[in-house]
Amino acid sequence: MQNITIYDTTLRDGAQAEELNLTTQDKVRIAQKLDDLGIHYIEGGWPGSNPTDRRFFEEIKSCTFKNAKLAAFGSTHMAKFTPEKDPNLAGLLEAETPVVTIFGKTWDIHATIALGVPLERNLELIANSVAYLKARVDEVIFDAEHFFDGFKRNPEYAIKALTAAFEAGADRLVLCDTNGGSLTSEIGRAVGEVRKLLPEARLGIHAHNDSELAVANSLEAVRLGAVQVQGTINGYGERCGNANLCSVIPNLELKMGFEVIGKENLARLLPVANFVSEIANLRPFMRQPFVGASAFAHKGGIHVSAILKDARTYEHIPPETVGNERRVLLSDQAGKSNILFKAHELGYKLAKDDPTVDRLLKELKIKESMGYEYSVADASFELMLREALGKPLDYFHFRHFFVVDAKREEDAEPMSEATVIVDVKGQQEHTAATGMGPVNALDRALRKGLELFYPRLGEIRLLDFKVRVLSGAVRDTGGTASFVRVLIESGDGTDRWTTMGVSHNIIEASWQAVVDAINYKLFKDEMAEA
Amino acid sequence: MQNITIYDTTLRDGAQAEELNLTTQDKVRIAQKLDDLGIHYIEGGWPGSNPTDRRFFEEIKSCTFKNAKLAAFGSTHMAKFTPEKDPNLAGLLEAETPVVTIFGKTWDIHATIALGVPLERNLELIANSVAYLKARVDEVIFDAEHFFDGFKRNPEYAIKALTAAFEAGADRLVLCDTNGGSLTSEIGRAVGEVRKLLPEARLGIHAHNDSELAVANSLEAVRLGAVQVQGTINGYGERCGNANLCSVIPNLELKMGFEVIGKENLARLLPVANFVSEIANLRPFMRQPFVGASAFAHKGGIHVSAILKDARTYEHIPPETVGNERRVLLSDQAGKSNILFKAHELGYKLAKDDPTVDRLLKELKIKESMGYEYSVADASFELMLREALGKPLDYFHFRHFFVVDAKREEDAEPMSEATVIVDVKGQQEHTAATGMGPVNALDRALRKGLELFYPRLGEIRLLDFKVRVLSGAVRDTGGTASFVRVLIESGDGTDRWTTMGVSHNIIEASWQAVVDAINYKLFKDEMAEA
Repeated sequence: MQNITIYDTTLRDGAQAEELNLTTQDKVRIAQKLDDLGIHYIEGGWPGSNPTDRRFFEEIKSCTFKNAKLAAFGSTHMAKFTPEKDPNLAGLLEAETPVVTIFGKTWDIHATIALGVPLERNLELIANSVAYLKARVDEVIFDAEHFFDGFKRNPEYAIKALTAAFEAGADRLVLCDTNGGSLTSEIGRAVGEVRKLLPEARLGIHAHNDSELAVANSLEAVRLGAVQVQGTINGYGERCGNANLCSVIPNLELKMGFEVIGKENLARLLPVANFVSEIANLRPFMRQPFVGASAFAHKGGIHVSAILKDARTYEHIPPETVGNERRVLLSDQAGKSNILFKAHELGYKLAKDDPTVDRLLKELKIKESMGYEYSVADASFELMLREALGKPLDYFHFRHFFVVDAKREEDAEPMSEATVIVDVKGQQEHTAATGMGPVNALDRALRKGLELFYPRLGEIRLLDFKVRVLSGAVRDTGGTASFVRVLIESGDGTDRWTTMGVSHNIIEASWQAVVDAINYKLFKDEMAEA
Repeated sequence: MQNITIYDTTLRDGAQAEELNLTTQDKVRIAQKLDDLGIHYIEGGWPGSNPTDRRFFEEIKSCTFKNAKLAAFGSTHMAKFTPEKDPNLAGLLEAETPVVTIFGKTWDIHATIALGVPLERNLELIANSVAYLKARVDEVIFDAEHFFDGFKRNPEYAIKALTAAFEAGADRLVLCDTNGGSLTSEIGRAVGEVRKLLPEARLGIHAHNDSELAVANSLEAVRLGAVQVQGTINGYGERCGNANLCSVIPNLELKMGFEVIGKENLARLLPVANFVSEIANLRPFMRQPFVGASAFAHKGGIHVSAILKDARTYEHIPPETVGNERRVLLSDQAGKSNILFKAHELGYKLAKDDPTVDRLLKELKIKESMGYEYSVADASFELMLREALGKPLDYFHFRHFFVVDAKREEDAEPMSEATVIVDVKGQQEHTAATGMGPVNALDRALRKGLELFYPRLGEIRLLDFKVRVLSGAVRDTGGTASFVRVLIESGDGTDRWTTMGVSHNIIEASWQAVVDAINYKLFKDEMAEA
């Protein structure tokens, strides 16, 4: 079986995506995850272009990688300098990576318009830069920018540019569909032609998704002989993004029979995709192939009954091969089996005809129509399940809260202060605390009252806090009066759990989630001690 | 030029998407938009399967379409009935549509497992159903469910099933990649084979996106002779969705040279895509090709300076051909050209060497490192630009705010109340208001104080309110004490604008965004009057 190498550019081209901003530390953490996943090349950034990337290459020097080679990215040297004097090439060498990737112009109008140099001079820039780097670095990759557009308009010049890089010693020639405008059939034709003209070159493909063809174009290039695919996790990237590695890899591995990252790593694709979207702080795309939350979610009644007989009927691959799972969406009969499945997972034994199941289904449907989303808040679901089973938790009772935010100076943050009254084990506790914002103040005041009785609450750490405005409600009531859902992820060093609140009022929604998080911690500890 | 017809199934297969629920009225409005856009076929639903669809076919009888033919969808008749007695076929006829589409099994295991009938009997169901309908309806379309999977495992049977439909009089045979698992090369091979075996049949393609190949697979089928493409607006559909018509149509029309909906209609593709996501109440996917907000958004400094010279350098098509527009994003990767472009767009004349540009770039980078994201908050950027130009706005001055949230009953929402002091035109205004949550209360109190002086503030509507916890900050300080960014979209019936705030404190972040939104409105009105 032939090997295909994956070249990840999430940290460089991916970071060009709208709304995506990565700190140096984010980049280091993502690089480590990519290495764990078995990715072969990680492009860390453009050391000459901004301070984040420069710092990244400094910090990453202390990390060792198991699988991946690190690459620094930059352009051919500037026309006004020799390679020796070019600050951009110098920056690439200072990064001290085993691989350097440089891009050069292969579309004639790009050389003359964007770069503003004569066509012959551009060929020199390419050859000089590659040769200069190849003498100083293990591996030099040449990204042929706009290759397919160039090949369509001036094939002779595009091939000349590629040849210049090849003859100067480039280890790989990566054909880029920089504008993402090429059709799959055009990619096929061009790759076939290059294979004929430069049979000894090792080719790669770098596709963009502007025509929604980046994955297909990458696969087509591989089918015709390319041995490397460049892309990004979740397809992040400038404009419509890059070829989505989360789709490219499973297609190559499961359907085309190539050895890529291996089946074992492939089964960890989904957690890595989620890790990156989490760090990037971008909402995951539900309908994303392979790793999306909806990718194996069945809603249609016919589909549900068929997959219960044989999953192949409506699933193209077993979800677990990419770390995903089958979901049956709450609707009609599917609801009951879903609740039973979930309850069973949590260790509660329920018969299908137990009236609790009906009651729970009814409550769940009401809550979900209000905006609660139990599929992501397991801890809140378990608390609801216990209520339905007649076993509600009884650690404390709410009496009262009061939160104040006061701002008295133009450039200062407001002062936030909260008071809370709760009854705990027959005693009334009245506490007060300040905080960084009203929710933090409330959280601190509540815990102050409870920690006297339950000292292990001191172990709770709030790991994440997400707020979503529910768009259904926006339409009805508009803007600042709309429904919000708050999700809180908590941890105590041993476990992590997610709780939820929904309300018109963000304070109330957060309060619900905080209360659930604390109750869940107390319940969990009690179970563990019992 | 050959014509390709588009068969939209947003209202049927699209409605299977997770989180997508359409009322009868929603479906009627979408059908009318699709007709306006020049779509040739609109599949309205499955009249036999649920009350929404049944009502839809009743209501739609009073509408006339300029371009589209309406289709009702259903399955072949049940094995236990004759076509005459089959309630499903009866339901299709009652819909009184000019076109009826039925799906039948062409993959052997589906006939035997999902349907539970012998293989020969399944062929009869197909032939009988098509013949029965064809005698009663203008046009009958046969959807060959799971055709490509069937063709791969048992080509002989798959072709037999197709032939049964064709010989019984089906006007079109639509080859379905129901599970979305087929590679583009497999689609090509199968379509080519069918064309040879049934040269007189008119073929269609129905692709799903589970391998991120639905668009490529649809185009490949057309390249090899299919004359109809089935898909949905924005690619909505079960699991990963259907072939995205918003990408299929422009690719066919602009790149492959087919006549589809015509150039004039194509220029209205984006508003229709947005209309459907609005009605469906789903957040638009920013990176969506052609019609996404990011599709022609440029962030990298090199890209921006090149498109200013010649847009072809980084755009595969002119954005306006699909109703989209070019955007230049401001970010820490932004160069001077991004700022100049933006300033120019807003009507400010700045020379490249104006010291304001440097100052602004520096401030922008500092603010973005704190979590501000000016690329999405144009109005906040313009206010910052005016400050940098030494023309700050002077409509009112902040003195003080005070917000209280008090909750005294277990199941009640807290009461939110705010007081605000501002100086306006030399007067001090002290106002108070309650609200649905603290931000709403603050917003109302502030506007109460200002509307006396600026009555047109009454026109502002808050259209959307987004909160994001910034993960960089989450890691540093944890959970409820992390940085949040608030984005507010406002409108006044004429314009829409987005403003932003960032703080540890969600109240403060919201306050910043509300203040900017109000300032922008006042400024905009003053400019319009001047």
